[in-house]
Amino acid sequence: MKKIRAVICGGSGYTGAELLRILNHAVEVEITAVTSEQSAGKQVTELFPHLHAYSSVCFEPLIKEALLDKGDVFFLALPHSASQAAVAFFHSHGKKVIDLSADYRLRDITTYERWYKTKHDFPDTLKHAVFGLPELYRSEIKNALLIANPGCYPTTAILALYPALRQKIITIDNIVIDSKSGVSGAGRKSEVAYSFCEVTDGFRAYGVALHRHTPEIEQELSVIAGAAVNVTFTPHLLPVARGMLSTVYAPLKDKATCLNDVHAIYADAYKDEPFVDVLPIGKYPDIRNVRGTNICQIGLAVSENGTLIIISAIDNLVKGASGQAVQNMNLMFGLDETAGLDLLPVVP
Amino acid sequence: MKKIRAVICGGSGYTGAELLRILNHAVEVEITAVTSEQSAGKQVTELFPHLHAYSSVCFEPLIKEALLDKGDVFFLALPHSASQAAVAFFHSHGKKVIDLSADYRLRDITTYERWYKTKHDFPDTLKHAVFGLPELYRSEIKNALLIANPGCYPTTAILALYPALRQKIITIDNIVIDSKSGVSGAGRKSEVAYSFCEVTDGFRAYGVALHRHTPEIEQELSVIAGAAVNVTFTPHLLPVARGMLSTVYAPLKDKATCLNDVHAIYADAYKDEPFVDVLPIGKYPDIRNVRGTNICQIGLAVSENGTLIIISAIDNLVKGASGQAVQNMNLMFGLDETAGLDLLPVVP
Amino acid sequence: MKKIRAVICGGSGYTGAELLRILNHAVEVEITAVTSEQSAGKQVTELFPHLHAYSSVCFEPLIKEALLDKGDVFFLALPHSASQAAVAFFHSHGKKVIDLSADYRLRDITTYERWYKTKHDFPDTLKHAVFGLPELYRSEIKNALLIANPGCYPTTAILALYPALRQKIITIDNIVIDSKSGVSGAGRKSEVAYSFCEVTDGFRAYGVALHRHTPEIEQELSVIAGAAVNVTFTPHLLPVARGMLSTVYAPLKDKATCLNDVHAIYADAYKDEPFVDVLPIGKYPDIRNVRGTNICQIGLAVSENGTLIIISAIDNLVKGASGQAVQNMNLMFGLDETAGLDLLPVVP
Amino acid sequence: MKKIRAVICGGSGYTGAELLRILNHAVEVEITAVTSEQSAGKQVTELFPHLHAYSSVCFEPLIKEALLDKGDVFFLALPHSASQAAVAFFHSHGKKVIDLSADYRLRDITTYERWYKTKHDFPDTLKHAVFGLPELYRSEIKNALLIANPGCYPTTAILALYPALRQKIITIDNIVIDSKSGVSGAGRKSEVAYSFCEVTDGFRAYGVALHRHTPEIEQELSVIAGAAVNVTFTPHLLPVARGMLSTVYAPLKDKATCLNDVHAIYADAYKDEPFVDVLPIGKYPDIRNVRGTNICQIGLAVSENGTLIIISAIDNLVKGASGQAVQNMNLMFGLDETAGLDLLPVVP
Repeated sequence: MKKIRAVICGGSGYTGAELLRILNHAVEVEITAVTSEQSAGKQVTELFPHLHAYSSVCFEPLIKEALLDKGDVFFLALPHSASQAAVAFFHSHGKKVIDLSADYRLRDITTYERWYKTKHDFPDTLKHAVFGLPELYRSEIKNALLIANPGCYPTTAILALYPALRQKIITIDNIVIDSKSGVSGAGRKSEVAYSFCEVTDGFRAYGVALHRHTPEIEQELSVIAGAAVNVTFTPHLLPVARGMLSTVYAPLKDKATCLNDVHAIYADAYKDEPFVDVLPIGKYPDIRNVRGTNICQIGLAVSENGTLIIISAIDNLVKGASGQAVQNMNLMFGLDETAGLDLLPVVP
Repeated sequence: MKKIRAVICGGSGYTGAELLRILNHAVEVEITAVTSEQSAGKQVTELFPHLHAYSSVCFEPLIKEALLDKGDVFFLALPHSASQAAVAFFHSHGKKVIDLSADYRLRDITTYERWYKTKHDFPDTLKHAVFGLPELYRSEIKNALLIANPGCYPTTAILALYPALRQKIITIDNIVIDSKSGVSGAGRKSEVAYSFCEVTDGFRAYGVALHRHTPEIEQELSVIAGAAVNVTFTPHLLPVARGMLSTVYAPLKDKATCLNDVHAIYADAYKDEPFVDVLPIGKYPDIRNVRGTNICQIGLAVSENGTLIIISAIDNLVKGASGQAVQNMNLMFGLDETAGLDLLPVVP
Repeated sequence: MKKIRAVICGGSGYTGAELLRILNHAVEVEITAVTSEQSAGKQVTELFPHLHAYSSVCFEPLIKEALLDKGDVFFLALPHSASQAAVAFFHSHGKKVIDLSADYRLRDITTYERWYKTKHDFPDTLKHAVFGLPELYRSEIKNALLIANPGCYPTTAILALYPALRQKIITIDNIVIDSKSGVSGAGRKSEVAYSFCEVTDGFRAYGVALHRHTPEIEQELSVIAGAAVNVTFTPHLLPVARGMLSTVYAPLKDKATCLNDVHAIYADAYKDEPFVDVLPIGKYPDIRNVRGTNICQIGLAVSENGTLIIISAIDNLVKGASGQAVQNMNLMFGLDETAGLDLLPVVP
Repeated sequence: MKKIRAVICGGSGYTGAELLRILNHAVEVEITAVTSEQSAGKQVTELFPHLHAYSSVCFEPLIKEALLDKGDVFFLALPHSASQAAVAFFHSHGKKVIDLSADYRLRDITTYERWYKTKHDFPDTLKHAVFGLPELYRSEIKNALLIANPGCYPTTAILALYPALRQKIITIDNIVIDSKSGVSGAGRKSEVAYSFCEVTDGFRAYGVALHRHTPEIEQELSVIAGAAVNVTFTPHLLPVARGMLSTVYAPLKDKATCLNDVHAIYADAYKDEPFVDVLPIGKYPDIRNVRGTNICQIGLAVSENGTLIIISAIDNLVKGASGQAVQNMNLMFGLDETAGLDLLPVVP
């Protein structure tokens, strides 16, 4: 069988490296090019010594025309706004594109431009983008040519709220999303603020009431609820490299709703999902147990005053980025949805 | 001047060790005895090699009668329920007592017995206990003989909500307290669940909707609000030894309330407090910056949908336990409230 | 094709869990039983929630007779001395046995009894044991029925010194092995000394000049050198869960030996080894880059005063235990030596 | 009493911040200026929020002439080579100077220029520099005007070897110094290599056989031994912010020398030292137990083949930098040598 040829644009960051790691286990895919402007000419293993299997691969500059014929699918792991034109180019030439940036996630251009403080030059291309959360849009993804791969925080928040919102068991006015992320969510950065000495033994909130993932969360929750949903979203920085856990709070409409009923709704909503694991009552996720995997674990509780508590955990670089991208690729190409994504976490 | 003689009952845990560390810098206090049943006869430095200054001190068993004459003040760092009788004994003999357990924090015995699943044998003593949060009860503490030193989570939650509740700018129906604690909050434990390999690189919620600090938080918030307050409280375990941060959410009554006004209320409420630091707008606490100190840092924000976000951070072993105990001692003995508590954190 | 049936005795520790993780990726093997006395009847996922794939498997007690027919190969991940009888039983019944304890590693019974302070009851069985380091004993392993799987420290030390000793370029009188191990090397323990709060932010030596891996290291180095080798071996505890790095020092016989020559000797010695990676001159191992893998990375340097410095790094639970055990199984059954062991590390 | 006025040049790095933290507890000293070129005009607390006590102090540019009259003592925490001229200026104007850079540590200018790859422009000033290790040069320090504060690695190595070398109980030909340092030793850096994600869960050697502290170690060991000493020195990077531990190996001249005798030599050598703590036989240092303090802990062992093992641990930013600088200041000004340096570590 002929392998699917994948090109990775922007391979010097953590999501790029994670695509390489995951695709190394995807037997039906071969990597034909990995780009990086700053590291062009360097071996992949010079930046990422752990990627032993790629010792013979070098980064190359992103020359769109030269790359066009090399790939059946293009993964774009570029910074926000830098992705716009590359996506539009490959898409306009009939290639399947999976964009890991935020450039094609927000359907409303005005919202995008306000939150990302940059113009969107490709409104026509944007119309073709499918929000790549398989649990919500599986059938659309199967037929899509352009996937806007979701952000990590939105993945945890949307998966946490989807069953409850769809069943309309919660009010939408006081939703609180308290999220905690490992440092790799900030990317491969040379900033003092992300240096080891400034992060270790610490814990802090950041982007309070201002984080760019807010409109993405609200967009999808509003679609599910069929009404405009506004949320209070607070991200925090955990002193770990990987992992993301969101604790989500929403008042139950009927204060008498019992946990068993809520649990049944969640178990049913996700019963066929290969990567969503609704834990038994009384069990809660730990980021360790999904580390390196594409799994989202969900735990549930109801507080004495009738608030539903949903706790969701993912690996921010896998289900929150590169793993979900591969899941989307699998769907787009009719492969087994779990191909390359069946590894167990390395614990402890 | 004659030094205040302090006896520490239960000195083999982290709060006991922390009392020793702090009181070593309190020039007007001398430690006359440190007890531990399991480690009786051992040097303090055998358990805690970092407490160099106590190399000549040994743990002794807690024989109440033998200790009585040795102390002007008795710090009790015993497990819950084990503290009841010792507190009652020293209190009944006219000694000043500071109890770091939960045994005398809840004014309602039924509530105590339900949450702690044990009988309270000293209801008369309980009536004399003052909840040792100086920011709320400073004048009572100055005249108290028995202090119920607050729990760590309640300290963060109450200090976070006090100004807003007192000024009645928030509704009390949908208060969410999302707390994250370092592992030392669990005590000095030999359980697999708290072993290094089971905690490192992890993050998880625990005691969801069930934690024993809930009634303590609700008791004090209800006093401030003048009405019964029920909260949704979720503690989480951070992979750090020390530090506690609570992110507290409460809907503003008037959605038009601006952050400046809220900030002014908080700044005013705490303007004379030596250990509460209301950060400028746009700044948020990091547990690193209060590590080893008695300071509570508070940051404020208002979300787009009118929810007040209050972030409070302390060192769970200092302002959340032993430091607050020493602050209370200082007040009880008419010392400078900050004596022994003026150290800067060791960062990084 | 019929799968190889594997029984894991002692599955509730980290090496047992790691066998389960690795064998999940070994398509030609099926696990037929996992034993644990303390956890008999419990699901594997109750102890190890990360082992999702084993949710239907329960621990059972180690009843030798009942297990005998269930396995083609028996992995024994039992504590030292507890392994003796079980090994002898399965071996005497013609089963292939891979023992991860130290019980069959030392060929000299007196040495074993002195260092492990226990009697060895099966001297005849011991004679059949092959030291399971494939780089030294591959052909013997292929034909062996009983493998004594090497200790983690010995694996790093022996692989570090093997080429230099064999080529006789170093003197054997002043060999220093300075080793650093992650905490999982101590096992899944409920001791205060291995609790998160006692290990984090720390670093210390332990078992100085007394560690039980010393005779195992010396036994194998003496075989290679053809003379009695005594070493100075100091293990240290790193505040990480996994990973082991040994920095080994040995005076060069000829002070004029240049690094290029040494490097050529090492590159040649390991050129056909699938799991030993001799790094280019100027590059040194990091435990992160072998985490979760069966790889041993080796870096080389020569100091100004003519001392050879060899730095070797492994994952103590993989090449230092369960991965090497699977490598041995692959050899014993004529499988591809790397089957189940080709995963890339999860970094960061 | 008039306070000693201290000027800190280069206050935006970790050693500068640590000087501020320590001197805050030194009642006889006041800080009159703190310089930083890049952060001039910013508050100290903007870079270091933990330094609450300095909220009213701002960084200023290093204008030598303007600073001259502000200080009785000048601490220079500047990068190597940047320190040369500033030291010479303040020294030539009769001020007491404590230089934390390497610029004045090596007595031989050729050695300095070879290792630091820069010219030394002030050979005459260099002649006045005293190597600021009080345990070796206390009397010289008391009368010195210019102190070259030792490097962190040299402090651990020299204190580890001093008693044994002085008593000539070890051979000097095969000394191995295997050192492990926390990340703060690399300074406050914005490099990917020191970012949290690249360091956490890792451990690696660096600068193998090439580290610039080698000539400094050899210079002082040669003075003690009265003969040229060459060492093999390997630094490693620990995934902790602070702490340094060196494991030092040296063959005993007389293989029959027993540990008791060695211990007696060390205990005697350091019996009057306020900051060197020779641990009892069988006890070994942990970097946690000296964190934030000026103490050097030393543990001793002898291996079976007659190698002396000396393990020394310090806080690299305190005894390895700023604490030792304050100790030197105390000696230069006739203060109590321990003033400002009597704090207990914050553990856990």
